[in-house]
Amino acid sequence: MRNVVLTIAYDGTNYSGWQIQKNAITVQGVIQKILENIVQHNIRIRVAGRTDTGVHAVGQVASFKTTASMSPRNIKEALNSMLPPDIRVLDVNDEDEKFHPRYSAIKRWYRYIIYNTDVPSPFFRNYSFWIRREIDIELLNGYCEKILGEHDFTSFAMIENGSSPIRKVFNCEIEKRGDFILLDIVANSFLRRMVRSIVGTFLDLERNKKPPEDVERILLARERRLAGQTAYPCGLYLMKVFY
Amino acid sequence: MRNVVLTIAYDGTNYSGWQIQKNAITVQGVIQKILENIVQHNIRIRVAGRTDTGVHAVGQVASFKTTASMSPRNIKEALNSMLPPDIRVLDVNDEDEKFHPRYSAIKRWYRYIIYNTDVPSPFFRNYSFWIRREIDIELLNGYCEKILGEHDFTSFAMIENGSSPIRKVFNCEIEKRGDFILLDIVANSFLRRMVRSIVGTFLDLERNKKPPEDVERILLARERRLAGQTAYPCGLYLMKVFY
Repeated sequence: MRNVVLTIAYDGTNYSGWQIQKNAITVQGVIQKILENIVQHNIRIRVAGRTDTGVHAVGQVASFKTTASMSPRNIKEALNSMLPPDIRVLDVNDEDEKFHPRYSAIKRWYRYIIYNTDVPSPFFRNYSFWIRREIDIELLNGYCEKILGEHDFTSFAMIENGSSPIRKVFNCEIEKRGDFILLDIVANSFLRRMVRSIVGTFLDLERNKKPPEDVERILLARERRLAGQTAYPCGLYLMKVFY
Repeated sequence: MRNVVLTIAYDGTNYSGWQIQKNAITVQGVIQKILENIVQHNIRIRVAGRTDTGVHAVGQVASFKTTASMSPRNIKEALNSMLPPDIRVLDVNDEDEKFHPRYSAIKRWYRYIIYNTDVPSPFFRNYSFWIRREIDIELLNGYCEKILGEHDFTSFAMIENGSSPIRKVFNCEIEKRGDFILLDIVANSFLRRMVRSIVGTFLDLERNKKPPEDVERILLARERRLAGQTAYPCGLYLMKVFY
């Protein structure tokens, strides 16, 4: 069977996350229904990262198996003509039957966007987390360095049954760009709520002028309650999945 | 009486334009109701530019007279705590009693944003006009030059009873910035739908590879039907009003 891979961007504002649910509108639910109409048989969609309610994607990757003979280009055009405008398919490709968007991925890049001004913006309200106070970028970068490499991220995530809490962070950087502060984090994979827990904790520590060593202490403690708040979902973007 | 001046940003997506109307939610309507609650008397709001349905503002200017003694800072904080998140008050100032946001203005800057990519963006769908085909920026700049200076803009506007169709354009420029194309236009004032008529006409001419002289011809004809379509409102922003 053909293994068709989609690269998808979506504005997560109006969705109860990626994963299909009864009685909730989800990105997967919307895409699956339309795809089944296009290929004329039931399908099962696999995905690289199950984003939470309100979280956005710039380069989500999903796949499905099909007996349909439509060209990738025609699948893309058909999907984009039927999908709501807050979900867009950027690319459609045929891949090897063994390709799995989640298990074949070697790393993922997430970005968290903070809007740092005196007054929040009507335009970025669903696309960033607004913070009024002045942020110490240098201090945040000090925290970022402490999570580089392989660690047990129990303190920074919602651990799901049976999954290992060990993850390897390849890159973690804060950059100020105009009124925005961008936190970019690349890891082999992420635990549930991991980026938002990291961002929320870093902002709590920064506000209290805590030293970077506190991040090490929290990591080593492996207790969620030692870390800070989970940052709002609207600032989070799944940017790219690497294979 | 105090003459209080507000600088306002709004996402026009969910509003039937600026001007107050019965049975429609407008930006003025929302602001007026909240302001009257704050100052505890009826007010009349004056504005620099009455934007249409779906048009955005980054720096709209409005004023009202009041007997209230609250500081500008407190008025700003009170407004922003009560306004919906798609309307934000950026600044509040006391001005001379003779100041009028519309009649005191010497020029206005509008920006039209085109998103020029193969697939539209879920994030910019309400904030830009998506065009797939390749756009000839040089040709558009040739059109821009032709509207500089003082002209009768009857062909490019909805003329309202009794108002002069003569306007003076100080600046009109097209710039490509990444996947965006920005058209900036500064004039002493604008006729109704003038920017959107100009943009729609320029895009029609550009698609048909027409020479810049066609813009002159349309201006001189002073007939709306010779110009092109009115471009979608979602790409238009009132950027700044100059006094």
